[in-house]
Amino acid sequence: MADRVNDHAVFEADDLRSFSIDCLEAMGVREEDAEQVTDCLLFADRTGHASHGIVRLPVYGRRVIAGVVSADARPRVEKETGSIAVVDAQNALGPVAGVYSMREAMRIASSAGIAMVLTRNSNHYGSAAFYTSIAMEAGYIGIAASNAPPNMAPFGGKDRFLGTNPLSVAVPAATQHPVVFDMASSVVARGNIILAAQRGDPIPEGWALDPDGNPTTDAAAALRGPVLPFGGAKGSAISLLIDIFSGVLSGAAYGRHLSTLENLNARQNLGHFSIAIDPSAFGERSFFLERMDDLITQLKETPTAPGFEEILVPGEIESRNASRIEASGVPVSDDVIAQLRELAGQLDVDAGLFAGSAKEE
Amino acid sequence: MADRVNDHAVFEADDLRSFSIDCLEAMGVREEDAEQVTDCLLFADRTGHASHGIVRLPVYGRRVIAGVVSADARPRVEKETGSIAVVDAQNALGPVAGVYSMREAMRIASSAGIAMVLTRNSNHYGSAAFYTSIAMEAGYIGIAASNAPPNMAPFGGKDRFLGTNPLSVAVPAATQHPVVFDMASSVVARGNIILAAQRGDPIPEGWALDPDGNPTTDAAAALRGPVLPFGGAKGSAISLLIDIFSGVLSGAAYGRHLSTLENLNARQNLGHFSIAIDPSAFGERSFFLERMDDLITQLKETPTAPGFEEILVPGEIESRNASRIEASGVPVSDDVIAQLRELAGQLDVDAGLFAGSAKEE
Repeated sequence: MADRVNDHAVFEADDLRSFSIDCLEAMGVREEDAEQVTDCLLFADRTGHASHGIVRLPVYGRRVIAGVVSADARPRVEKETGSIAVVDAQNALGPVAGVYSMREAMRIASSAGIAMVLTRNSNHYGSAAFYTSIAMEAGYIGIAASNAPPNMAPFGGKDRFLGTNPLSVAVPAATQHPVVFDMASSVVARGNIILAAQRGDPIPEGWALDPDGNPTTDAAAALRGPVLPFGGAKGSAISLLIDIFSGVLSGAAYGRHLSTLENLNARQNLGHFSIAIDPSAFGERSFFLERMDDLITQLKETPTAPGFEEILVPGEIESRNASRIEASGVPVSDDVIAQLRELAGQLDVDAGLFAGSAKEE
Repeated sequence: MADRVNDHAVFEADDLRSFSIDCLEAMGVREEDAEQVTDCLLFADRTGHASHGIVRLPVYGRRVIAGVVSADARPRVEKETGSIAVVDAQNALGPVAGVYSMREAMRIASSAGIAMVLTRNSNHYGSAAFYTSIAMEAGYIGIAASNAPPNMAPFGGKDRFLGTNPLSVAVPAATQHPVVFDMASSVVARGNIILAAQRGDPIPEGWALDPDGNPTTDAAAALRGPVLPFGGAKGSAISLLIDIFSGVLSGAAYGRHLSTLENLNARQNLGHFSIAIDPSAFGERSFFLERMDDLITQLKETPTAPGFEEILVPGEIESRNASRIEASGVPVSDDVIAQLRELAGQLDVDAGLFAGSAKEE
């Protein structure tokens, strides 16, 4: 039973977690993997990025049921040499592959100082910061990225070619807020354009092109065209580089070879890369952490520009979101609740937590 | 003797090269190092980025003469463990340290697949693509970056805090143009604002702030304020991360501890990082290079948006500049010629190549 607020209901994270694990196990996902996938989804909901949260469980379910994602696959190291490894995810769910690969990177980096693990035959990655946070909490600097199907025009182009490829870097600090950077390589997440289109609102120029390649403020036209890379030519190149490391070098699909999450007739063969760096390989760990604190303090003490109240460390907004959502619960829209109930029905999973949470009841 | 064109003269690259090597050797720089520094400067001039070219030789000279840069220092590996190393540049000129560090990264990566070398006690880095191109030409993927003194406001700030920290990534291809990405983390190089101020032209909004932190189109006001990071909060975070790897982790100066190139009373203690990745560690080299060709072909075949004639691979503009400048010579402004002649006078170096090249003669 959940509280209702306008067009959504609010749930205890633990209730959503149990429900998600039940659904995944009912699909044939092993318990430990079901927990990892769920924790990845709820990491996004908790940090205020609902677009990568529990909203994705229904499409994960549709893909497993359609047979284009393997519920019980075990990623494995295909090749390991020196400080690098290649992981074949065996078509497992993305978070299963992502966690496995980052842990392999941490294992290798624990003796080598740095490790790079490339992953192929994988699926939708979710929040890249979920993986880098695992590394950071174990004392490493974590870097994680994934390619994604064409949704974005390259600089100068009018068609979808690049993915909105996410990149995260997490760096620990001693007592200051750590640096947890997580970006899509598009100006904004496509979810913001979908929302504007639903409301009939215009979008700012620079977010997307219409299908003819012209800048548009019409959200509906923007949804038929490509989104734009952040920072013009630079963001376009960064997205391309993420595809090179995640896709071209790993042996995964890349560029136009990547099919969409919604296409239930094709495997995606997404690629990721995970880098772990052990700061203590370079010098005293405490020395590094104190210097991180000093840099972050300097950053936050920089006088603000008009219109800004403070300067935030990358990841600080997400920490505040997490505190707020911890207290108030995880919001889930009526539309997503309906999809989750439908999934539960298909899988014969108890959906009691949603009782009385939808408008029609 | 050089051709005159408006406010500059044009020189054979070889003539400038000999002159620059002579000056550096006269300062006490060893022959091999003088060649590397010169090649780094001329790499920038040749690829159309004159702001990092021979224009910097006079300030390199002033710093060596003032004793805040060591002419004959030899960088050395302070620490090497697993796949990482820390280089103490011993206050050598930046290109001496940069080439040394990238070569160390290539050496370690040749057996480990990946290597990360951090460099401290260094100086002005020049074109980051110079170092990544060295790695790429030897078959590696090269990544190189440096921190730089505060010149840029962090997202939300009004004062200079971040450097316009450069980052380059170079990836080889089989027959297509390779990907040679090289960016500053500011929207534009400060040189463009200096040029606009000299001409009395306005600058586009979004390039810089005035000293009060307000957006400005007045180039003169912009020169008294900070430049802005590319891509808003994302570019600001990327610049911060470059400082973390180059400065905080390496043991170099970082943040506000970095002093300017123009301050002849202080060492800079800049930091860099160099990463080399051996693609053949992950799989067949030819397979990787063919896939790179395919990705680049796909990129270039993407239909163009209105106003664009073609889609360029990162680095392709620079290659075209190099072909053009190869044929027509390297342009050097009268102002820079005057500084180079002054430097030659101080060092008792033959400046015959400039005879008849300045307006006053």
